[in-house]
Amino acid sequence: MTASPEERAVRILERLDELFEIGRDAGTNRPGLGEGEQRAHDLVAGWMREAGLDVTVDRAGNLWGRGAGADPSLPEVWSGSHLDTPPDGGRFDGALGVVTALEAAAAIRASGGARRTIAVVAFRLEEGPRFGRGVFGSRALLGELEPDEAELVDADGVSLGEAFAALGLGESLPTGPILDRAPACFVEAHIEQGPSLAAHGATLGVVTSIAGMAGIELVFTGRRGHAGTVPMRLRADALAAAAGFVRRAHDAALTLPGAVATIGRMEVSPGATNTIPGRVELFADLRAPDAERLEALIAAASSAATSAAEGSSCGVELLPRWRYEPVAMYPEPAGALRRAIAAAGLEPVELPSGAGHDAAITAAAGIPSAMLFVRSDADGVSHAPEESTAPDAVAAAVGVLEAALRELAG
Amino acid sequence: MTASPEERAVRILERLDELFEIGRDAGTNRPGLGEGEQRAHDLVAGWMREAGLDVTVDRAGNLWGRGAGADPSLPEVWSGSHLDTPPDGGRFDGALGVVTALEAAAAIRASGGARRTIAVVAFRLEEGPRFGRGVFGSRALLGELEPDEAELVDADGVSLGEAFAALGLGESLPTGPILDRAPACFVEAHIEQGPSLAAHGATLGVVTSIAGMAGIELVFTGRRGHAGTVPMRLRADALAAAAGFVRRAHDAALTLPGAVATIGRMEVSPGATNTIPGRVELFADLRAPDAERLEALIAAASSAATSAAEGSSCGVELLPRWRYEPVAMYPEPAGALRRAIAAAGLEPVELPSGAGHDAAITAAAGIPSAMLFVRSDADGVSHAPEESTAPDAVAAAVGVLEAALRELAG
Repeated sequence: MTASPEERAVRILERLDELFEIGRDAGTNRPGLGEGEQRAHDLVAGWMREAGLDVTVDRAGNLWGRGAGADPSLPEVWSGSHLDTPPDGGRFDGALGVVTALEAAAAIRASGGARRTIAVVAFRLEEGPRFGRGVFGSRALLGELEPDEAELVDADGVSLGEAFAALGLGESLPTGPILDRAPACFVEAHIEQGPSLAAHGATLGVVTSIAGMAGIELVFTGRRGHAGTVPMRLRADALAAAAGFVRRAHDAALTLPGAVATIGRMEVSPGATNTIPGRVELFADLRAPDAERLEALIAAASSAATSAAEGSSCGVELLPRWRYEPVAMYPEPAGALRRAIAAAGLEPVELPSGAGHDAAITAAAGIPSAMLFVRSDADGVSHAPEESTAPDAVAAAVGVLEAALRELAG
Repeated sequence: MTASPEERAVRILERLDELFEIGRDAGTNRPGLGEGEQRAHDLVAGWMREAGLDVTVDRAGNLWGRGAGADPSLPEVWSGSHLDTPPDGGRFDGALGVVTALEAAAAIRASGGARRTIAVVAFRLEEGPRFGRGVFGSRALLGELEPDEAELVDADGVSLGEAFAALGLGESLPTGPILDRAPACFVEAHIEQGPSLAAHGATLGVVTSIAGMAGIELVFTGRRGHAGTVPMRLRADALAAAAGFVRRAHDAALTLPGAVATIGRMEVSPGATNTIPGRVELFADLRAPDAERLEALIAAASSAATSAAEGSSCGVELLPRWRYEPVAMYPEPAGALRRAIAAAGLEPVELPSGAGHDAAITAAAGIPSAMLFVRSDADGVSHAPEESTAPDAVAAAVGVLEAALRELAG
């Protein structure tokens, strides 16, 4: 347990490979509240036990591994992330934060522990694609599930409540907060998932704030018809409307600095090569660095939908699915990360996060939260099997996270 | 068997309802060479036997019901269409032509028959969506299957050859022509699938020519990434490229009179709400009334694909899947239809067909072919459950088809 950061990085990368094999197809597929996520939780629970941590699972299915502190009356220090993935995802997103936190917590415990209890956490169902809404585990912990949340269904028609029950987590979702005592802080290490650190020549970064974001489902309805017999000017082609929306939504994001618009899912009905599409459903993921730009982006996308639909003689319905306001990270845990990065001889780059994370949920709920970003290699590609972080950055991350947790846990 | 046209229309509509129930979901789903099409063939074979016709199935699986003529040395007169449907299709497309031909042939047989044998035919797999290529039965009859045809696969990964074998039609597709003696003519009755006859206040039409058409699969490739972390200007969003293509292809068709462009199928990968699409596959169905405009439309669509891809930093691959040249209908059988329509006191409207049909295959192969179009109601909607033709038009169609077949069969 006196392994060097480089030796720990080797073990972390081996474990990420082992997790990657769960549900592997082209990339890895471990949808939240599914069998793959459960196998990942079981695997990590075993590693937690090997490291001597006390393992528990809370009522939302979140996995905890605690290394008891010298003074159990003090609020805990948390570190971790999630173990689910988007479809065909990579090795690092989520899993890096859990496995690195485990490595750091195990090292602290092996060297005699800290004053505060350190808890390694794997939150459930952080990714949105399966049910159209993510960060389930952290929201459940804080009593923030929506009343209709159990009724959300995935592409196979399985409801979130059914998936939850199938894992033996309970017949109904937890209501009210699970958390009984607020922690001192939560530090989430995570792959950056973008090109900024690499562009700065930096290895690690400290997140300043997490972008605001809105998820809106859109349904364009036109009129089906035969591909050969309906003149162009008499068509109400739902895909023509949807394609117009995609272009306009992208253009709107381009005019707002730091804003992004992504249409990642689109279903064309009936989907026959020789039938004019009568219906297109798509999902718009809109993000911006502050509340004002988020509002402007949502307004621009809404008006783009209306005008694209009208331009193609179609109708459109907008169904807002989720919205998270931009949220700032907390100075104290962020300061501990900055100091640890500087002590490691690296530049403590500060940057905003365009991705949502469990740390945004905990911060918005008043838990002092911070994020350590670890450099993305492979041009910042993420949510794809190519997602990558080189061993030097993993080694730096585990050393810095351990040092920061030591400071925060007193 | 001395039923009035109105009584026959009632029976035809009842039979179309019965066929519609096969594979019914929202609309009816009887993909060619599938179980639903087979059940439809079995049902129609029973009706053929009830009507006293001699039932056979050829090596391509096409269903034939013959009413023997007084002079078996004379070439036959054929009439029919197909019994498969696109996904979620309607009652009339294809089935109307088979059931109406059966009704007309039965009436002729019951009243003593004609000089020539009249053969009612149901061709296999006319619709393109299942395997990306249609008019299988008529092409097989004429020995026009492509060498790779058995390897085409449907969305479930079933190959055309496997689907063919699963129906007991043979371990390999027929090679060379099945047809041993050319018929005198082929007359296909079919719902118009468009709004033209209704707009003319007409009930029946005679097809002058069938549009040229090309099917091209396009694959746009970009770079996957996280929806929150990759700035708009650094993206290679395959859906942005595909959406640009859709708009440009539609615009190109608008500038060519009588041309149409339909993108009916589009698949976005990986299809996660929070991942920038790295790949989009779509199918472009391009049609035009003559060879020159078809060529111009294909060229415009190809250049639209390239420029849309470049504009979004993506690549694109074009895979031509099929192409049929425009084909004229034959004067003699078309004349018989015109005369029968006029004799019924209706206006014999002449119009081109924007849809492809088995009659285009037989005509291109030199079989004197003609088509009787029957008015579409419901605004010409087709390839949809709303597809409809009112009883008056069905009654007119069966009377006219019987009269024309009597003339052609001598």
